[in-house]
Amino acid sequence: MLGMFCIRACSGLVGRWTATCVRSLHVFPGITVDQIDEEVSKLLQLKAQLGGNDGKNQFVLKTPKGTRDYNPKQMAIREKVFNTIVGCFKRHGAETIDTPVFELKETLTGKYGEDSKLIYDLKDQGGELLALRYDLTVPFARYLAMNKITNIKRYHIAKVYRRDNPAMTRGRYREFYQCDFDIAGQYDAMIPDAECLKIVHEILSELDLGDFRIKVNDRRILDGMFAVCGVPDDKFRTICSTVDKLDKMPWEEVKKEMVNEKGLSEEAADQIGEYVSMQGGMDLAERLLQDQKMSQSKLACAGLSDIKLLFTYLQLFQVTDKVVFDLSLARGLDYYTGIIYEAVLTQAGVAPVTTEAQNGAAAEESVSVGSVAGGGRYDGLVGMFDPKGRKVPCVGVSIGIERVFSIMEQKAEASTEKIRTTEVQIMVASAQKNLLEEKLKLVTELWNAGIKAEVMYKKNPKLLSQLQHCEESGIPLVAILGEQELKDGVVKLRVVATREEVDISRAALIDEVWRRTSAA
Amino acid sequence: MLGMFCIRACSGLVGRWTATCVRSLHVFPGITVDQIDEEVSKLLQLKAQLGGNDGKNQFVLKTPKGTRDYNPKQMAIREKVFNTIVGCFKRHGAETIDTPVFELKETLTGKYGEDSKLIYDLKDQGGELLALRYDLTVPFARYLAMNKITNIKRYHIAKVYRRDNPAMTRGRYREFYQCDFDIAGQYDAMIPDAECLKIVHEILSELDLGDFRIKVNDRRILDGMFAVCGVPDDKFRTICSTVDKLDKMPWEEVKKEMVNEKGLSEEAADQIGEYVSMQGGMDLAERLLQDQKMSQSKLACAGLSDIKLLFTYLQLFQVTDKVVFDLSLARGLDYYTGIIYEAVLTQAGVAPVTTEAQNGAAAEESVSVGSVAGGGRYDGLVGMFDPKGRKVPCVGVSIGIERVFSIMEQKAEASTEKIRTTEVQIMVASAQKNLLEEKLKLVTELWNAGIKAEVMYKKNPKLLSQLQHCEESGIPLVAILGEQELKDGVVKLRVVATREEVDISRAALIDEVWRRTSAA
Repeated sequence: MLGMFCIRACSGLVGRWTATCVRSLHVFPGITVDQIDEEVSKLLQLKAQLGGNDGKNQFVLKTPKGTRDYNPKQMAIREKVFNTIVGCFKRHGAETIDTPVFELKETLTGKYGEDSKLIYDLKDQGGELLALRYDLTVPFARYLAMNKITNIKRYHIAKVYRRDNPAMTRGRYREFYQCDFDIAGQYDAMIPDAECLKIVHEILSELDLGDFRIKVNDRRILDGMFAVCGVPDDKFRTICSTVDKLDKMPWEEVKKEMVNEKGLSEEAADQIGEYVSMQGGMDLAERLLQDQKMSQSKLACAGLSDIKLLFTYLQLFQVTDKVVFDLSLARGLDYYTGIIYEAVLTQAGVAPVTTEAQNGAAAEESVSVGSVAGGGRYDGLVGMFDPKGRKVPCVGVSIGIERVFSIMEQKAEASTEKIRTTEVQIMVASAQKNLLEEKLKLVTELWNAGIKAEVMYKKNPKLLSQLQHCEESGIPLVAILGEQELKDGVVKLRVVATREEVDISRAALIDEVWRRTSAA
Repeated sequence: MLGMFCIRACSGLVGRWTATCVRSLHVFPGITVDQIDEEVSKLLQLKAQLGGNDGKNQFVLKTPKGTRDYNPKQMAIREKVFNTIVGCFKRHGAETIDTPVFELKETLTGKYGEDSKLIYDLKDQGGELLALRYDLTVPFARYLAMNKITNIKRYHIAKVYRRDNPAMTRGRYREFYQCDFDIAGQYDAMIPDAECLKIVHEILSELDLGDFRIKVNDRRILDGMFAVCGVPDDKFRTICSTVDKLDKMPWEEVKKEMVNEKGLSEEAADQIGEYVSMQGGMDLAERLLQDQKMSQSKLACAGLSDIKLLFTYLQLFQVTDKVVFDLSLARGLDYYTGIIYEAVLTQAGVAPVTTEAQNGAAAEESVSVGSVAGGGRYDGLVGMFDPKGRKVPCVGVSIGIERVFSIMEQKAEASTEKIRTTEVQIMVASAQKNLLEEKLKLVTELWNAGIKAEVMYKKNPKLLSQLQHCEESGIPLVAILGEQELKDGVVKLRVVATREEVDISRAALIDEVWRRTSAA
């Protein structure tokens, strides 16, 4: 902290700050590389604003930390992924809504526990106090309460913002997309919950990212388990967040944290240890319902009965092959009240990097990166916004799409298949000079007929450069105009891939282009 | 200002502030209703954070000022509008990119002139200094310079942010969509410029919003005109922004501002007055090229020659019916260097409300609301970001889509035709009890075949409520299961509109659903 303060204090002394600050870093080694990067970037910005000393363009030419531009190739991949996901949401009858990118600061207050420190606040410029949305769930709950909606099945795909220190190479960013599907309403147990899992299964299968598992658990089972293992009531939450670390550190360390840091008795910890090592399906839920200790907790039994019911529906939905009832799953967010779940990719190269698993921070990243979807039931959140506290039960799932983009981008780079970034069907070209007007007339005919067409923005481009443009951007057809063609009332239609050329009458051209490109 | 300060100072004294502040308002009447609303909302937020005094849910349940949620119906309209616009952009061979919602503060600095005060800054939370994007053009220029791109034709549809005081009922917001199409690259004069106008023409025609006009002018013609009329060089910009007000106030007032406020000679003002009343087409450009005074300016002549060339291409593109060369058009943004244009809806009820035209603020709103697209050439902007100042000539257009949404929403409300918010093809229902499992099996079959299908989340819903749901959400088909149907291996397929029912074998159901819904 003192190291940070020093760099801050130096910011005013642009030019002379370096030596002092570097010295301070030795004195206060608590500072991280990320913090230094941020401070340097800020100092360079300040310097640029002060005018600098060597010319006019002193810009730091970058996007903000933790964000990225999407280039046309990345956008083509993104569009494909979104189409798959939206297609699935629509197949399940969801409507869609949108909310502003920022909310009143207080709307977000008290919803995210410790993570609240990661919220981006807007500067107080003399109006309301605002903050960028941290997820899509809280705005959804605010929307339901504000509009007194008690029943809806909706999806929402939008960017959310977290001032985290993410590993961007692994597809984690400060600005990232979430694709949420939620079902709000008072319904019979586990039917909407099961549909959410069906949706995760469909999407991950269709995206073809390799094998995956969907882990399920229930808040009530966790809480019941803590009770029967002798965890004091006021330690449920903190012990729960220690359990949440089981996918990134071995049991021995988790136990150490429970006992040494959180002050749990060794006996209680060992009992928890037995339970959280359990994985299974409906059979496990049945066994635990008979379990001498677990069956003492009404809460746990309610959760276990629902897990049984869930698996019944999952069988009918044909998705049990990927779903595991896993007692170690304990998702962080405060607002979950029932079933919780998380999907992870299990294929080599995509799963958590195990060599890093000993190192806290690095391991956390490698694990979260394996997770591509998560969600659960949150029956109390809408009531937090309703003036009379009226509850609207909700269950939902969020697809963490950035990791998916990263994998698809890697795949695309490794593949020889070229990604097209436009959908142009035909290029209007000429081999001779002074035909610009004729080309513009023809391209207008094509546009007006709804055909995707291009013409070069040069009066007299070379035929070769026109053909090269087609090769590069994957345009399949060229309409070549020349004096002779104009005289004959035809165009020479060239197929780029085969170099085959054929004269087509002007009147027949549009049909011919449709015929040749509709298969593609 | 003093009134504002007082309310701010009162904010700490929640509970006792009202009397004092209301008194202050009488003393300092400069305060506006909007400012009061903002302060009240802020005080209520503060109060809620302090705990309030009557219960737990003290939330101000609203979206931030100047923003709105989109409900499913509005989203259905939005999707339709976007499809039209994106379809046009793709037809013209554009790629798409995306950029972060915020930029380094300095990226936006010095690009928007006076409007910079409307930029939303993020709070300094100890990293880089950030601000929400104000438009898509500056991020685009930053993207080109950062990636050293010299040629691209791209569209970008995204939200931008302005701390304005907009009239939301008229489709103006603080968070709003822009749909931008830009062509970057060194090309022959006016070909890309003409294509931008062709695109505006196509989009506004397809959206079917009523009649429209596209006004064109050129920065060089404006500057040349000012020079030959005797405006001193250092007054070009300020006189230009006075000319920009001609669409919202009569010439007499504009002249008064030029002479009394900006200190221009009456003679110079009168000369400008003659020119800015001129409207026409290619003929006007030709006449002005012969004009004794105008022809003395090389800059104006260059602009006029380009206008002539532009109209040649516009004729080939078949769009001259809507395009007017209008010397009073003077768009505000600093970065334009050549042709500028603006599209306005001219139909009654949509066009500027003339009764308000006498009142400054109100008139400004009514006019901006008529404008639905604008753009121009900006050859210097990318160079501002390049470390070596390398220029990339650009021309582009921005479709102001919020106004379009508002018009479409009004139309939809006035129409009897129902807007569907989902695309569900079939509902799986039952008339008898205890068939949930069979229904879930059937809906799984349908989903797995790619059919959009729904089932109610109740074990034993009434048939009537299942049919009502179909009527309400426009689902055309129902598959009704009963004991008899299960025995016979069929489902009863009901057409919601006609109430016709027919038994279909399970094996043939999927084909039958496709057959009956593919026409829709």
